[in-house]
Amino acid sequence: MPDALYEKHKDTLKRARTTIVSRTYWSPYPESPRGYGEEAPKKGEAAFESRLGKRFALDQAAAEWSSGGETSAYGRELGVAYPVTEVAALLDNAAAAAHQWAQAPVKHRSGVCLEILHRLGKNSFEMAHAVMQTTGQSFLMAFQAGGPHALDRGLEAVAYAHEAAVSLPKHMQWEKPQGKRDPIVLNKTWRLRPAGIAVTIGVSTFPTWNGYPGIFASLATGNPVIVKPHPATIMPFALFVETARGVLRDAGFDPNVVQLAVDNPGHPIAKDLVMDPRVKLVDYTGGSAFGDWLEQNVTHAEVFTEKAGVNSVILDSAEDLKGVFRNLSVSMTMYGGQMCTTPQNVYVPRSGMRVAGDEVPYADVVAGYTGAIAGLLSDDDRASDILGAIKDPASVDRIEAAAATGRVLLESRQIKNSLYPDAIVRTPVVVAADAADKDSYMREMFGPVIYVIATDSTKHSLELAKESALRHGAITWLVYSTDSSVQDAAEDAAVEAGVSVAFNLTGSLFVNQSAAFSDFHVTGANPAGNASLTDPAFIAKRFRVVGVRKPA
Amino acid sequence: MPDALYEKHKDTLKRARTTIVSRTYWSPYPESPRGYGEEAPKKGEAAFESRLGKRFALDQAAAEWSSGGETSAYGRELGVAYPVTEVAALLDNAAAAAHQWAQAPVKHRSGVCLEILHRLGKNSFEMAHAVMQTTGQSFLMAFQAGGPHALDRGLEAVAYAHEAAVSLPKHMQWEKPQGKRDPIVLNKTWRLRPAGIAVTIGVSTFPTWNGYPGIFASLATGNPVIVKPHPATIMPFALFVETARGVLRDAGFDPNVVQLAVDNPGHPIAKDLVMDPRVKLVDYTGGSAFGDWLEQNVTHAEVFTEKAGVNSVILDSAEDLKGVFRNLSVSMTMYGGQMCTTPQNVYVPRSGMRVAGDEVPYADVVAGYTGAIAGLLSDDDRASDILGAIKDPASVDRIEAAAATGRVLLESRQIKNSLYPDAIVRTPVVVAADAADKDSYMREMFGPVIYVIATDSTKHSLELAKESALRHGAITWLVYSTDSSVQDAAEDAAVEAGVSVAFNLTGSLFVNQSAAFSDFHVTGANPAGNASLTDPAFIAKRFRVVGVRKPA
Repeated sequence: MPDALYEKHKDTLKRARTTIVSRTYWSPYPESPRGYGEEAPKKGEAAFESRLGKRFALDQAAAEWSSGGETSAYGRELGVAYPVTEVAALLDNAAAAAHQWAQAPVKHRSGVCLEILHRLGKNSFEMAHAVMQTTGQSFLMAFQAGGPHALDRGLEAVAYAHEAAVSLPKHMQWEKPQGKRDPIVLNKTWRLRPAGIAVTIGVSTFPTWNGYPGIFASLATGNPVIVKPHPATIMPFALFVETARGVLRDAGFDPNVVQLAVDNPGHPIAKDLVMDPRVKLVDYTGGSAFGDWLEQNVTHAEVFTEKAGVNSVILDSAEDLKGVFRNLSVSMTMYGGQMCTTPQNVYVPRSGMRVAGDEVPYADVVAGYTGAIAGLLSDDDRASDILGAIKDPASVDRIEAAAATGRVLLESRQIKNSLYPDAIVRTPVVVAADAADKDSYMREMFGPVIYVIATDSTKHSLELAKESALRHGAITWLVYSTDSSVQDAAEDAAVEAGVSVAFNLTGSLFVNQSAAFSDFHVTGANPAGNASLTDPAFIAKRFRVVGVRKPA
Repeated sequence: MPDALYEKHKDTLKRARTTIVSRTYWSPYPESPRGYGEEAPKKGEAAFESRLGKRFALDQAAAEWSSGGETSAYGRELGVAYPVTEVAALLDNAAAAAHQWAQAPVKHRSGVCLEILHRLGKNSFEMAHAVMQTTGQSFLMAFQAGGPHALDRGLEAVAYAHEAAVSLPKHMQWEKPQGKRDPIVLNKTWRLRPAGIAVTIGVSTFPTWNGYPGIFASLATGNPVIVKPHPATIMPFALFVETARGVLRDAGFDPNVVQLAVDNPGHPIAKDLVMDPRVKLVDYTGGSAFGDWLEQNVTHAEVFTEKAGVNSVILDSAEDLKGVFRNLSVSMTMYGGQMCTTPQNVYVPRSGMRVAGDEVPYADVVAGYTGAIAGLLSDDDRASDILGAIKDPASVDRIEAAAATGRVLLESRQIKNSLYPDAIVRTPVVVAADAADKDSYMREMFGPVIYVIATDSTKHSLELAKESALRHGAITWLVYSTDSSVQDAAEDAAVEAGVSVAFNLTGSLFVNQSAAFSDFHVTGANPAGNASLTDPAFIAKRFRVVGVRKPA
């Protein structure tokens, strides 16, 4: 059976292994909902609805059943109860399942991983509803980022893991000349040794997109994985775990290679899980406070973090200022600024911008920018589609906190979602901050908060953005400049700041978007996180190599 | 100039990059002293002698000059004073040198690294004397392990680093189809970003062999390196730093890309160095106490450790028991057990061994083994050549401590070195330990101490060796068995214990020897160390990648 799974998916794996090298565009999982046939949308929605208000049928030993702290950002009553397996049992189960999984040939593990991705792909509509309702994303974003794009990221990790695992020769003969005497001849083999139990700690906003890379990297390198969702967003990972355990069982493996660990905000279990010495891998996405704690305290395991950052837009010059604002107004408002790649700070020289040969004064730049946002979000229904809903009510508090620290350039507006009246929907507040008032804007204000910072020059803008990235982390920069020397300076500053940088985006690609197989997500080189999705470092320490030498 | 260096050495680099994949035998630096011409030995010795009793001519700003705590294991008066650069100055210098080195093309950095290796290779006799006199190795070991074999390990690291650095496409065009609309087309580049300042903390016994991998891995990936030798063994690294700075200067780089940091045992500076937040890479070889401290406390940097372990020999069965003892008597006594790969514990079933169809009783096995050691070391001059000299007087104390915990099977003998009468030379004490008395033998007794442990069976032996490795670390296992099921069980146990394993060595290859380009040194999977020399994980986090996207 595992052999058959590998055969079934080997062409996909081969293409993935080629593409992580070429880094060209590729996605094996269609990103358009229209790519799944006529029945899929209805069936997926029905499958999701049938989960609500009852126990989630997961075959894990349960001391009790609990909904954790799960909420719907759209205000629906979900009422799904998940099996709660004790921490000690989770760890013992994982340890018991580890040996068989570790002993399995690389191809078998890759085959199982690819089949999990394949079955998840076929079920992208149910996953989309689960992601949408829990996180507050719009349906299309939930479909794409929660389904196909997340699967791309998972497959990418499997490709890196497979590549790393098969990079050593199989049995080989090593021959060292000894002058006139006979050479020394040894038969050598290398055995892979998985690191140990892996724990993934999920985030409430993009659980699958951020979670699959670590989960699949650990699985493909032979480690059992305990998936601990954010207590407020459980269902997407419950669907993943259900699918994974099904494939594992079908392939003859202990399903406890993948387990769900449900907790609730009152009794968090993440620390208990990760401090067990059998845990050797921890993948975390979420706020900086707990991420920093993990990095500083879990010294017995490899810790991979994706934390928070303050992303910047640098406005210097442009050919088409309307195109600039069109692009920015979307990228800075979609999903209400709840993406870790959303720009928060816009730096503009007080002297204004040079646009197609003309000088546009600062005030006009700001007016054009806020006007573009206001215009984009003027219709409530369209605004709802773009903004989604706010997952964490603390994001609403930040709107007022931000407004109190500077001059409000554009008020936040309360939007009514006609389908989900209880959803919390807000347009972003745009606040003018003084460049010197770093305490206000040089910190992450997760959610619908935007700062516009007037600077002495673009050089000054770059200095501030760099300082901000190195002190507080950053994942994306977006620079608008038609001047190649400014572009070069911005690129050098981005490299020093450890931030991916895009230039002059005016079309339908947004800086928030990071494409699997091509773009690295987070560099690992500033406080936004220590891991990069997916680079060789994300894989390398998930297994070790043991050499075996025998005389020939 | 850097271009010329790359051209000069590109064939060597190419071969190295091929060989880390094929893992076949190769060494570009001759391991035989005869491979260096007739003049080299005399010139090297004279160069070494000319260093003694004066200031070491290193062009580093010096607040003062100091010999640190340098000693000669052969009892010579070295009297070499090194420039002592203040910790703050070392860090500031490294930071100032970092930018130019980071900006240099990969080829230039690799060219500089290869030229450093090349010049060190031509100077292998001077290095051999420096290593021999400081560490107490025999001349031949000092020549090979301190010179060519260390250079192999350094080149191996450069090959991995170069491979990792050039693995991304240069400028490429990324094209995402958009159905009937025009595709999204982006020009993408990826820029490498070195991690930051690297600190190498050296060991007193094999400074270059253990130090070059981390140093060259950091240099080749663009990081400035501060080399802090063990205070008792400074000169080998002073020679390295002198050569490296010379090449850097010749190639137009700031020589402070490589600096020497001298301290003395009374005022150690390692903690001050590594706790500076600008330090992002730490390579350490040495005792477990400080290695554990680094792993647990230096959470702002990547820490690569090679610490201590308890290596095991498992005797089960053999065709040629004399060959077994011949091999073991050498591998367990060379350099007085001061190699981190030296076996310390010999496990023998109380029922004895099966040898070529006959049962050999336990007592006969032990007598044969101790007899082989006594015979090998019976002549003082030959014993001196094999044992070298003891570097750390604490190793002598351990002989008596070990003798006190069990029944002495072979007394340690004091040997007189006829050339160096003040050298401390001891044959190993062989002590019988009870399998249950884990406190005695299940700990590292660095130096000339061997335990023989009678067990219930080979299965019991493997269990004890595995427990020992997982609790206290281990780098090598050597198993003697003609039974393929025992070999398989031993291999599985070694994989679980994270220990490289060799079988049935009876010829001129010893388990202590680890060949660059083929054998990994330390697996990173047990407390003997978290790094493996050299695997992709040893390189991967020394630099990061920053993506740059521009519309086409």
